[in-house]
Amino acid sequence: MCNCLIAQSGGPTSVINSSVVGLVDENTKLNIFNTVYGGLNGIEGILNENIINLSICDKNVLETFKLTPSSGLGSCRYKMKDYNNDESEYIKIFDIFHKLDIKAFFYIGGNDSMDTVSKLSKYAEIKNLDVKIMGIPKTIDNDLPITDHTPGFGSAAKFISTVALETYLDSSVYINNGIFILETMGRDAGWLAASASLAKLNNKPIADFIYLPEIAFNADTFINDVSEKFKKQNHVYIVASEGLKDNSGNFLSTLQSTGCHDNFGHAQLGGVGNYLRNLILDNNITTRVKSLELGVLQRCAMHVSSSIDVEEAYASGAAALRFAKDGISGYMVGIKRIDGSTYSTETFPIKASTVANNVKYIPRDWINKEGNGVNELFYTYANPLISGNVELIYNNCIPSYHIFNK
Amino acid sequence: MCNCLIAQSGGPTSVINSSVVGLVDENTKLNIFNTVYGGLNGIEGILNENIINLSICDKNVLETFKLTPSSGLGSCRYKMKDYNNDESEYIKIFDIFHKLDIKAFFYIGGNDSMDTVSKLSKYAEIKNLDVKIMGIPKTIDNDLPITDHTPGFGSAAKFISTVALETYLDSSVYINNGIFILETMGRDAGWLAASASLAKLNNKPIADFIYLPEIAFNADTFINDVSEKFKKQNHVYIVASEGLKDNSGNFLSTLQSTGCHDNFGHAQLGGVGNYLRNLILDNNITTRVKSLELGVLQRCAMHVSSSIDVEEAYASGAAALRFAKDGISGYMVGIKRIDGSTYSTETFPIKASTVANNVKYIPRDWINKEGNGVNELFYTYANPLISGNVELIYNNCIPSYHIFNK
Repeated sequence: MCNCLIAQSGGPTSVINSSVVGLVDENTKLNIFNTVYGGLNGIEGILNENIINLSICDKNVLETFKLTPSSGLGSCRYKMKDYNNDESEYIKIFDIFHKLDIKAFFYIGGNDSMDTVSKLSKYAEIKNLDVKIMGIPKTIDNDLPITDHTPGFGSAAKFISTVALETYLDSSVYINNGIFILETMGRDAGWLAASASLAKLNNKPIADFIYLPEIAFNADTFINDVSEKFKKQNHVYIVASEGLKDNSGNFLSTLQSTGCHDNFGHAQLGGVGNYLRNLILDNNITTRVKSLELGVLQRCAMHVSSSIDVEEAYASGAAALRFAKDGISGYMVGIKRIDGSTYSTETFPIKASTVANNVKYIPRDWINKEGNGVNELFYTYANPLISGNVELIYNNCIPSYHIFNK
Repeated sequence: MCNCLIAQSGGPTSVINSSVVGLVDENTKLNIFNTVYGGLNGIEGILNENIINLSICDKNVLETFKLTPSSGLGSCRYKMKDYNNDESEYIKIFDIFHKLDIKAFFYIGGNDSMDTVSKLSKYAEIKNLDVKIMGIPKTIDNDLPITDHTPGFGSAAKFISTVALETYLDSSVYINNGIFILETMGRDAGWLAASASLAKLNNKPIADFIYLPEIAFNADTFINDVSEKFKKQNHVYIVASEGLKDNSGNFLSTLQSTGCHDNFGHAQLGGVGNYLRNLILDNNITTRVKSLELGVLQRCAMHVSSSIDVEEAYASGAAALRFAKDGISGYMVGIKRIDGSTYSTETFPIKASTVANNVKYIPRDWINKEGNGVNELFYTYANPLISGNVELIYNNCIPSYHIFNK
């Protein structure tokens, strides 16, 4: 009986390890491969033969690993060369596969990783090498096309909406409150910023404005809208995606003033949150402006993850194994909603080359007319994805996590 | 039967509302006061007679309010004048107390609020006014003297240690990792930064260095230590308190270069995390440096609070009511550990004037010899305070919170 190999690539998520465990468990159940190997640090580590045996792992270790955030097999950002120009890496990888009798390779990742899946599967086809290559989706950005959503997004959305509600409460305790800006990730698409719309107090969304990369940012409109809202409420809560661009497509985060301090003496800091903060200060809307950048917390806050997300990541790993067994190669596992009154999903294969280098944006009709918020269509789409709380394993009052790459 | 009044002041915590509910519930149980009134926005709101009736609240509302972060009665930062110089505010407040037949006033807060408690109780004594004034402790900073710890700290410490572990995992996935800096609150004392020492992986603390305001920061030592650790580990995890000061007592966060960019072209950003980041960049240790400022999340992330902390905040509210009933005035509720093999506490009264304007630092012998971390004495002290997970109430997959000040 032959073996298989799984590895992780790109930026981590809270549930990327759940997909590894889903595949290992499915293999134990179906007994397809003798050994499931884990490649450490993605393709980069595999090229150095950093490979471990996951099939000998204790059940408890796998259970803990399933609920451990971040890439526990290690990751890489490694773009493979075109095999028409340089075949050497391909030869090396398939030699390693041959040496370990690996007949299927699973790569968990986003856009770039699906490019690797596509290239490796095409190379195998051309060279008539019997190794199935399958992609397993992963990105908090939720911007992969065709699949309904990506594992990792639901947990990031749950974290963002939870802390949006909590920071809203924190920022509104005084008689004279100020303006709070929450900066989320999302360089190309606004899925993460939009997920703050799930945060409600007394059934009313807490975010006054959500700015998305899908809509060109207009500073004059922003200043007018925020100024009016502040006059009315004495408090404004703003959510902004790091990927905001102006009409000419320039990222706001790079549009910093050239001087060290502006006319009013405030330091010009980096990031979209600080750009918006300076706009508010420079236009004398108020001096009470706070900006918070959530940063990497969005992709590793397993302590507030969605159990739907964990289970779908797990199911994606299991589905990849079954697809490879059925002879499918060069595809990524996609997630599809099943019609019905309650939320449920199934997996299906998507050609990896159609995923690579494509971006899925929030549809225009899910965004409000003014372009500064999302509507019920987004809410209906996103709400089920943050369902359920995960029961973590604890050790001395802190979550107990397990990684293999240390 | 007369009435009482409770209000909140200063920066919010995750558990400040638990103390309100503790007092309301204790009053229901002991039937001491006819009505528990809530003052909105602290003394500032009370002066405007913004007062609500908490005794008519539904049980479900109180249960939700107990688990709602941030000051749900609203807050203020209002320093009362010395009554020897200006009596007018005192006259107004005690007039309002008289009008509503308020015989006890409870103020939840930190240092400054205990100054208010002290002043009001002395004024009542001098004027022979029969109103008991009691303080209930609250601050994530944990820097109030005499009390073993303060409600709010345990939940902040639990959040910090949990996300320290998660961001450690996130920052160590590549073959070539960088340096990660976590910036915590704590302007005077390092309790919050030190709580990152509770985060362990395989029973080994994840933080390589923890820098505290208690120890004067030396840039040369920092550069040497971080450089050596990076050479050895290819990854360094640093925790820094916002209140770091140099040998002359200057806050590092104000020691920014005057130029807009340093010699190497990186923008000089604000905050201690960015100060340390620039030190690392300028000394060519590595170009991969990330800094994350946790900001207000530390004081409102109820979703990862400590149930010990919630219950102690609740018990502090209840104790304040009993102390007032016993005729005590001008005191703050303190928390004391009961000797024994398992952790338990009891409350006791502390003169508010001894708390006001004093700061409790981490004892020197809880800090390591090098002054860049804490030892087992801190761990033994802090670990019980983050015990237990709180079962929040959920509404559409997001915590359900209730506030009164909107």
